[in-house]
Amino acid sequence: MRPQTSIIFDLDGTLTDSVYQNVAAWKEALDSENIPLAMWRIHRKIGMSGGLMLKTLSRETGLTISPEQAKKLSDKHAQAYEALQGQIIALPGAVELLNTLTEEGVQWCIATSGGVDTASINLKALKLNAKDINLITRDDVKYGKPDPDLFLAAAQKMDVAIEECLVIGDAVWDMLAARRCKATGIGLLSGGYDRGELERAGALRVYEDPLSLLHHLDEVASRP
Amino acid sequence: MRPQTSIIFDLDGTLTDSVYQNVAAWKEALDSENIPLAMWRIHRKIGMSGGLMLKTLSRETGLTISPEQAKKLSDKHAQAYEALQGQIIALPGAVELLNTLTEEGVQWCIATSGGVDTASINLKALKLNAKDINLITRDDVKYGKPDPDLFLAAAQKMDVAIEECLVIGDAVWDMLAARRCKATGIGLLSGGYDRGELERAGALRVYEDPLSLLHHLDEVASRP
Repeated sequence: MRPQTSIIFDLDGTLTDSVYQNVAAWKEALDSENIPLAMWRIHRKIGMSGGLMLKTLSRETGLTISPEQAKKLSDKHAQAYEALQGQIIALPGAVELLNTLTEEGVQWCIATSGGVDTASINLKALKLNAKDINLITRDDVKYGKPDPDLFLAAAQKMDVAIEECLVIGDAVWDMLAARRCKATGIGLLSGGYDRGELERAGALRVYEDPLSLLHHLDEVASRP
Repeated sequence: MRPQTSIIFDLDGTLTDSVYQNVAAWKEALDSENIPLAMWRIHRKIGMSGGLMLKTLSRETGLTISPEQAKKLSDKHAQAYEALQGQIIALPGAVELLNTLTEEGVQWCIATSGGVDTASINLKALKLNAKDINLITRDDVKYGKPDPDLFLAAAQKMDVAIEECLVIGDAVWDMLAARRCKATGIGLLSGGYDRGELERAGALRVYEDPLSLLHHLDEVASRP
């Protein structure tokens, strides 16, 4: 039997140009709680589960973030992100890539560390509706990335073996989570991380954006 | 004679937490001219001279940007950046680092690819006044980074040999320009680029931010 590739996509920074808005929204939330944090440190944590992100940031900065404050920060982030939704558009090639996979009968699923609300903003930019596609959000699993739960749930949803899945992501956390469940990580530069960061976290290959992945898909996916 | 180190600083992303606002301001300007460009591509060009940045972007995207449109984009960027100036603060350790150098009698100069207007916004965040310090801006030289003109002018202003200067910067363009004039490039992660990108562009050492540089200054600078 030839292996048959199925594809799991991260959403933010992988299919939509939304990482920088996500950074700005976290910055606004943290500022409003008087937690001073440089933008680059926030950027490097995007794509993690929100809870784990706050835990890591509090460890790095030595600040204590109570569960109540974490809830407040998360709500403020969601509000601020919503206010920026008009800026969020599909990355070049994202829509074409998904359509091509669907036409060729390749199964795909979107697995995001964000909740349904945040995901909906990004899906709108892709002209997709949550209920028409395979979608796993933070609300479906116990732990977000870099735990592999989201990707395992995505494979289960598609009824395929996780070992046959490509995980397409822009963040180190996607690549680590992919490696942790024996999926194959493929990095994209479109979230603003460097090729080296993604490769060091286990990416087999790194492409610029969804368009570039579409042009090189045969390098990493089985032919249907 | 022991070599005596003088220090040339980039400004945006090196002393102030302003790269992400700079990216947002360019995005706003480009959107207003209907030039679609993903945020990560803009981010990777920050720190270049504005003119060269537009030239490079137009080459990469295949779009033609006329000199008139370039002027309009540059003006819109300056406006948008000014609107975001309330968000711009000093990076951790920036003020302490400059004060320490001054106290120890180490000469320093700020050399930025931005014009005087943009520089003033960042200097305000550092509680510095353009006329009280050694400052070289885009307006003082023929070419911005990655040409070495800004750094050569900075060394001249301090009346020191460029070979004895450290160039502290967060962008690949700072490191390339430093190497091109035989200064020693020291990278900071605070602009959101990866250690690997900076090292591949010639950084001798890479630190997290000005605070981390202050803590490790003896690794790279002569003792006064």
